Amino acid sequence: MKIGIVGVTGYGGIELYRLLTAHPDVETISLYSSSQAGGTIKDIYSHMNTVTNHRLLDIQPEQMKRELDVIFLAAPAGVSSELTPQLLGDKAKVIDLSGDLRLHNRNTYSQWYKKEAAPDSVLAQAVYGLPEWNKENIASADLIANPGCYPTAVLLGLGPLMRSHSADPSSIIIDAKSGVSGAGKNPSAITHFGHTQENFQIYKVNEHQHIPEIEQQLTEWNGAVTPITLSTHLVPMTRGIMATMYMKLHEEITLRQLVEQYQAYYQDQPFVRVREEGNFPCTKDVYASNYCDICLALDNRTRRVTVVSVIDNLMKGAASQAIQNMNLVCGLRETTGLEYLPVYP
Amino acid sequence: MKIGIVGVTGYGGIELYRLLTAHPDVETISLYSSSQAGGTIKDIYSHMNTVTNHRLLDIQPEQMKRELDVIFLAAPAGVSSELTPQLLGDKAKVIDLSGDLRLHNRNTYSQWYKKEAAPDSVLAQAVYGLPEWNKENIASADLIANPGCYPTAVLLGLGPLMRSHSADPSSIIIDAKSGVSGAGKNPSAITHFGHTQENFQIYKVNEHQHIPEIEQQLTEWNGAVTPITLSTHLVPMTRGIMATMYMKLHEEITLRQLVEQYQAYYQDQPFVRVREEGNFPCTKDVYASNYCDICLALDNRTRRVTVVSVIDNLMKGAASQAIQNMNLVCGLRETTGLEYLPVYP
Amino acid sequence: MKIGIVGVTGYGGIELYRLLTAHPDVETISLYSSSQAGGTIKDIYSHMNTVTNHRLLDIQPEQMKRELDVIFLAAPAGVSSELTPQLLGDKAKVIDLSGDLRLHNRNTYSQWYKKEAAPDSVLAQAVYGLPEWNKENIASADLIANPGCYPTAVLLGLGPLMRSHSADPSSIIIDAKSGVSGAGKNPSAITHFGHTQENFQIYKVNEHQHIPEIEQQLTEWNGAVTPITLSTHLVPMTRGIMATMYMKLHEEITLRQLVEQYQAYYQDQPFVRVREEGNFPCTKDVYASNYCDICLALDNRTRRVTVVSVIDNLMKGAASQAIQNMNLVCGLRETTGLEYLPVYP
Amino acid sequence: MKIGIVGVTGYGGIELYRLLTAHPDVETISLYSSSQAGGTIKDIYSHMNTVTNHRLLDIQPEQMKRELDVIFLAAPAGVSSELTPQLLGDKAKVIDLSGDLRLHNRNTYSQWYKKEAAPDSVLAQAVYGLPEWNKENIASADLIANPGCYPTAVLLGLGPLMRSHSADPSSIIIDAKSGVSGAGKNPSAITHFGHTQENFQIYKVNEHQHIPEIEQQLTEWNGAVTPITLSTHLVPMTRGIMATMYMKLHEEITLRQLVEQYQAYYQDQPFVRVREEGNFPCTKDVYASNYCDICLALDNRTRRVTVVSVIDNLMKGAASQAIQNMNLVCGLRETTGLEYLPVYP
Repeated sequence: MKIGIVGVTGYGGIELYRLLTAHPDVETISLYSSSQAGGTIKDIYSHMNTVTNHRLLDIQPEQMKRELDVIFLAAPAGVSSELTPQLLGDKAKVIDLSGDLRLHNRNTYSQWYKKEAAPDSVLAQAVYGLPEWNKENIASADLIANPGCYPTAVLLGLGPLMRSHSADPSSIIIDAKSGVSGAGKNPSAITHFGHTQENFQIYKVNEHQHIPEIEQQLTEWNGAVTPITLSTHLVPMTRGIMATMYMKLHEEITLRQLVEQYQAYYQDQPFVRVREEGNFPCTKDVYASNYCDICLALDNRTRRVTVVSVIDNLMKGAASQAIQNMNLVCGLRETTGLEYLPVYP
Repeated sequence: MKIGIVGVTGYGGIELYRLLTAHPDVETISLYSSSQAGGTIKDIYSHMNTVTNHRLLDIQPEQMKRELDVIFLAAPAGVSSELTPQLLGDKAKVIDLSGDLRLHNRNTYSQWYKKEAAPDSVLAQAVYGLPEWNKENIASADLIANPGCYPTAVLLGLGPLMRSHSADPSSIIIDAKSGVSGAGKNPSAITHFGHTQENFQIYKVNEHQHIPEIEQQLTEWNGAVTPITLSTHLVPMTRGIMATMYMKLHEEITLRQLVEQYQAYYQDQPFVRVREEGNFPCTKDVYASNYCDICLALDNRTRRVTVVSVIDNLMKGAASQAIQNMNLVCGLRETTGLEYLPVYP
Repeated sequence: MKIGIVGVTGYGGIELYRLLTAHPDVETISLYSSSQAGGTIKDIYSHMNTVTNHRLLDIQPEQMKRELDVIFLAAPAGVSSELTPQLLGDKAKVIDLSGDLRLHNRNTYSQWYKKEAAPDSVLAQAVYGLPEWNKENIASADLIANPGCYPTAVLLGLGPLMRSHSADPSSIIIDAKSGVSGAGKNPSAITHFGHTQENFQIYKVNEHQHIPEIEQQLTEWNGAVTPITLSTHLVPMTRGIMATMYMKLHEEITLRQLVEQYQAYYQDQPFVRVREEGNFPCTKDVYASNYCDICLALDNRTRRVTVVSVIDNLMKGAASQAIQNMNLVCGLRETTGLEYLPVYP
Repeated sequence: MKIGIVGVTGYGGIELYRLLTAHPDVETISLYSSSQAGGTIKDIYSHMNTVTNHRLLDIQPEQMKRELDVIFLAAPAGVSSELTPQLLGDKAKVIDLSGDLRLHNRNTYSQWYKKEAAPDSVLAQAVYGLPEWNKENIASADLIANPGCYPTAVLLGLGPLMRSHSADPSSIIIDAKSGVSGAGKNPSAITHFGHTQENFQIYKVNEHQHIPEIEQQLTEWNGAVTPITLSTHLVPMTRGIMATMYMKLHEEITLRQLVEQYQAYYQDQPFVRVREEGNFPCTKDVYASNYCDICLALDNRTRRVTVVSVIDNLMKGAASQAIQNMNLVCGLRETTGLEYLPVYP
């Protein structure tokens, strides 16, 4: 297969490149950049030294859509809205890692992203790329909206509970924590080592653009869902997300029953690992892998369930999930090129 | 004043020692250790090299209670229950940093600490040392139960809201995060650098022994409080706690009104800094200081209030709060020896 | 191929396991442990959850040597000296990751390791497994002594300079820095997060057991080498070694010539990347990969050359180099199962 | 005393501010900034929230020199060269934390700093502010050039050895490591958390502008000193410098004798702690303090001495040393306002 990556200079793009070079069905990888065309990837990323002389190409949609099998878009918000229409309609499947194509409602997008949304005709084609819950639609799609990092951890963690209607859909509180790579590669005061090291920060309280993405999927699962609370924090580490989620249980369900529901839902999903009671995951349990580890606790004093879900934000939260989608779109085995055990320690 | 520290070999104890050597009203400091008596403090702590030849003494209660003005107990759970009765009744005031004397109810203690509680006669004398809410009782006490690290952050963050009865007391969810020093100085698998670095961990879900301590104080403020949810996490940093707390608001109160309530409650409290809307603190804002920084947010979509409270767990969460209590007990100005600006970066 | 790992509970062992599960020529992996036989690997390593039910077996040398193709020994110093003689002489090739079999001289071993050395008959069979300099001997060996982490970085960095005789062999000073995983998995005061975070430590000054290993190889390259100076430091990070090395240059050689010598020496070595002048590597450039990156500088004011060499201590410094040796020993392509790009960020 | 700080928005400036607010002889502190005049310090530094409403003033040299007792310059290289002449000649003493006034030779400055040097008339007045070696000159100076961070660690570590002429002055190799705060507060690719975390970097090999500063002082101590080798590295931590230094010993001096020489030299210096053989310091031993800890090792195999010296780069390497100089210049006790024990853990 011939692959193109737009926006390889960001963290999501370079991670895609790393994984695709080891993917057995990938024949060629072309790299595109609007800002740095003409340079080579090793000028930007010193760890690519001697590995590649890949030159960054100008984005030429006509040629790309005709010659490439899959195009990954890993550019900042706003780029995909403009670029996607030009890439569809020919051979290439498009997998977009930005938030541009995830929300069905253009007004919701504008409100949370402070940008104009993509045309409805494009949004209508975009299939939400959460493979564990949407595999059939993904397999037949031309355009995939790859989920955000927080939504991936949250939705995999809440899905079975929402579908089983055993918890109060107006009680969802999500306290999410991410490594600093989630803030991207551009230097800023908030990601400067002197500020970030030995520091735990909270940001975008009630304002994170992943809130409507999560609500959209939750509502599809359960129409009674009301607006959620999502708090996002920066952990002084590079990779990893933990979402700690709280809901009130409706009825006299036991923790054992809940865990078994989860295990049943995910038993055929190779990348979701439902853990036994009390065996809580840490983010390092999934470092540099495509796994999502989930564990539940139930407090009988409060009848609240606590769901803990961890992923690597650059992997299952971005690049490796995008490749999982590529595998499905291209009719490959879902796990191809993704069977990485977590890197530990 | 003549001061004694029992348990100086732990993180709380050595922090007490550091602060007390710079306290203008402290004349002598005697150090006690059951396990390492006979050694010197610099044998244990290399950063004390050449600073001190302080020898660690055997614990001799009779002499200590007679000769010392203030005795700090910074020993592991269980020690204070036995030692405190022998130290009371003479000159010395006792300030206990452990959890042994904080809970009024002996059964509750046994249930959460898995140990036998101190005698009721001792518990009855122990005054809960949260100065911002209990100053008068502290000033006249002989025995202070210094609050736990999580309870300090949580109670300072929730106090005004509980007292104003403007939020639903059955809706309290607390998601708390601590630096690794909270787990103490003893090496273990959970605090080993290879495991902890680049890792975010959750622990003691619904089982942390600080839960009943928080509930006890909340209930004193508002009898309608029901069991709370508290989740505790380990952040890959040494110092700092952030508690992110969620409650449902009763009525049509505005965020501005809430912030003003907080500012009014704390206006005469030198170590609590209530911040303006949107100006959320990070843990580094209070690093190595006695401050607690608090900020609130209100989501009008959900009518949930989010309260964020940060402290340095070894300072306001342990040693410097203990000295704040000492100042009050001894009739000194509350801020004496504690006017440290945060260390940044 | 059927593979066995002895000592999978340590960092080196679990890294071997991770890499071998992705190796295309590996058919089965058996895990052995003297201390934890009977348990499963996921009981020890939570990130292996659901991945494996591999049970840890008792070490049974007779059976192992007969049935396995390759046995990796990743046990603490002293174990291999005793175990290796029982594993040789049948089908299995043995690759030892400890320091037990690297030194030819038994007295030198005893002096630096404070243990009794392996029998001369075993030492005589052990081939030093530094593939870039010893490929032919490795290919025909039954027993490989996998190099230490510091020696790997140092020897790859100094090799061409020693062979070209262009520097003073009595002037070698090596200042080496390692991530904390180099100190192993056992919790200790020196690897406790509270001590290690925000800390840079020096240890074993002039006493590190890797000194004689480095000197042995340097002397083979250049008989005029005198005792070296090696300082070892712990960096507050998990993985990575940088060796900064200083030598006095003999003659009027230019930096350009030196770099070209290095590039010529290593041009057919897939895992050594000689960088251009001024383009110094950092440890993250080789994170979780088998690469060694090398760069040189020459100060014309002092006529001293500075050689900088970086590796991942658990990969090229231990596990992935061991698999590189396995590939050579088994007649596979040297890079099989090792073509990992560095994980960044 | 009335104090002014120019450049309080940088790390050195804010550290000065923190320390000066706790200094017993400081009456007022005025803050100056060319870039951010009109703003307040808490707009820039969130941890100063509620502590101060200090407004940043425009730099007005005429008024400052007349009204202030001491002016600290903590601005980037180049500013002091221009500003200092306007501040001298009246009441104010000037203490400059930049590198502008440290080098006697204007050409040397231009060569290493790539800027034009200050006028000779200004340089002639500048006294090098290394108190342990220059106390008398400092006490009578109007203008102090506060030493660089690396030079402080290096010169305190080498001083006694240079003065005793017991080592070869042409053999000095210095391998220095610094926390990331040494690179300043401005965000950049090199200090971005995603790049710096889990990374050890080398930079400015043979090109660091602190080289001539070190050589200038070494040559004053021993005219036979030849150009030195200095390598500088970035450690993934915020604060701390360790210099590991190597020299060849001339004669049959023992380690014990060397240590005693050091102890004799520094016995009246309150901030230099010479440690016993084998008791090597780590950077955390001096965290947030004005101490410099030194330890020596001698390898009888090589007759090389290894000197290890650690400081906090923002304290003894910048702000607290500047205050030590202020104390001397103003006739105060040298330790006033500086008696901080290291913060640990």
